[in-house]
Amino acid sequence: MVDLDQIKVLAWDIGGTVFNWRGTIEKELEEIQRKQGIELDIFKFASDWRYGMFDMLAKVRSEEIPRINADQIHRKVLDDVIDTSGTLSLSESERDDLNSVWHRLEAWDDAPAAIERLRERYTVIPLTVLSWSIGVDCSKFNGISWDGLISCEFLRQYKPDPGSYLHAAELLNVAPSEIMMCAAHTSDLMAARETGYRTAFVYREIEKARDISTNTFSEEPSVPLECFDVHGQDFVELTSKLLT
Amino acid sequence: MVDLDQIKVLAWDIGGTVFNWRGTIEKELEEIQRKQGIELDIFKFASDWRYGMFDMLAKVRSEEIPRINADQIHRKVLDDVIDTSGTLSLSESERDDLNSVWHRLEAWDDAPAAIERLRERYTVIPLTVLSWSIGVDCSKFNGISWDGLISCEFLRQYKPDPGSYLHAAELLNVAPSEIMMCAAHTSDLMAARETGYRTAFVYREIEKARDISTNTFSEEPSVPLECFDVHGQDFVELTSKLLT
Repeated sequence: MVDLDQIKVLAWDIGGTVFNWRGTIEKELEEIQRKQGIELDIFKFASDWRYGMFDMLAKVRSEEIPRINADQIHRKVLDDVIDTSGTLSLSESERDDLNSVWHRLEAWDDAPAAIERLRERYTVIPLTVLSWSIGVDCSKFNGISWDGLISCEFLRQYKPDPGSYLHAAELLNVAPSEIMMCAAHTSDLMAARETGYRTAFVYREIEKARDISTNTFSEEPSVPLECFDVHGQDFVELTSKLLT
Repeated sequence: MVDLDQIKVLAWDIGGTVFNWRGTIEKELEEIQRKQGIELDIFKFASDWRYGMFDMLAKVRSEEIPRINADQIHRKVLDDVIDTSGTLSLSESERDDLNSVWHRLEAWDDAPAAIERLRERYTVIPLTVLSWSIGVDCSKFNGISWDGLISCEFLRQYKPDPGSYLHAAELLNVAPSEIMMCAAHTSDLMAARETGYRTAFVYREIEKARDISTNTFSEEPSVPLECFDVHGQDFVELTSKLLT
């Protein structure tokens, strides 16, 4: 059992873990579909956009393409997804507007109060592949305050590459073992653990583990729960365990 | 007169402007002086430490020495200042402890409430040459929450070099003209203005303008108040003007 007295920092994944990207994106697409009177496979559109971002991010991580941030990636992928959809017609400025939906992601209902409570005992920050301004804007939009906000946009590497977790620890001025990564995604947690972080898994209904090479999905967590130091069915249970 | 509706972000200097570095450092030194029963020129010690940091930072900025953050600079300068003082005897770990005082700087009394009020209308962040963890720790120590926290530690350049302000604007995803730099220091504000930022000056009793080349000091502000878009005698007056 992890000794929680050794933990100084809780580093949170936010895309999917704190913010409900799919619910927000699908609602925005439904509104556009209604206005334009078109047929759109909304689930597929949202998925292609999100996972297309991770595919392009993999190219950034491998230096196959120059380093660009999540906003720039989202915007490029959006063009592809619109082309693929076949039915959606949007001007350049309408595409920019749609792309800005990532700055207004709605938080999961149980997240804001949990984060506020955890800050009483820990330094609580996001550690995200999303752009820094997405983190700032979505947090402000949902009334969530953190003790700071780290985006891989200004770290040496992007998650789940080890340099991201190690550089975050340097900025935080603590040892990796004093940080607990909190996420709904196995890959993030297992990569953080490899660099010495402690880990906390929280269930989120829509999050699936994706194998990027085969584009196949499995239920989260994709490893036994015992691989994590702490786990919770939701933010309430996880918070309760982290504050004992 | 600046149109405040055009301003999205207030970027705050924190060392000296939000946190009373001199008061905190001098109190810590008085305690050490009392315990050791020595004579120490506390005003000079605190000044040499603070301005020695800026002198070494100038060498980082000019690439005369490799890039190190404010914590590492503070620690190196502390050794010099202790040697110069002649009377203070501290072990390596005691020096590390004393160096950590920069993570416990006390906020000026009028700062926390002002920042909280300003967040209702603006995105409010620090933009500091201090290390990112100093910003996080001092804010948490004083119960101050921000919408995010930018340290030059991870920007292309350190203030007052232009790349610092421009990179911060990029991370914030806004134009420089949509940011207002808020500080008690003329040099910071005038440099920010050169890159397109708007400026707000706030008086702090202990802050003086320093000419680094001659090590001479003058009253702040060292330019006419009219050079700034907004100014206030204190945080209460400045906040009132920024929220009209």
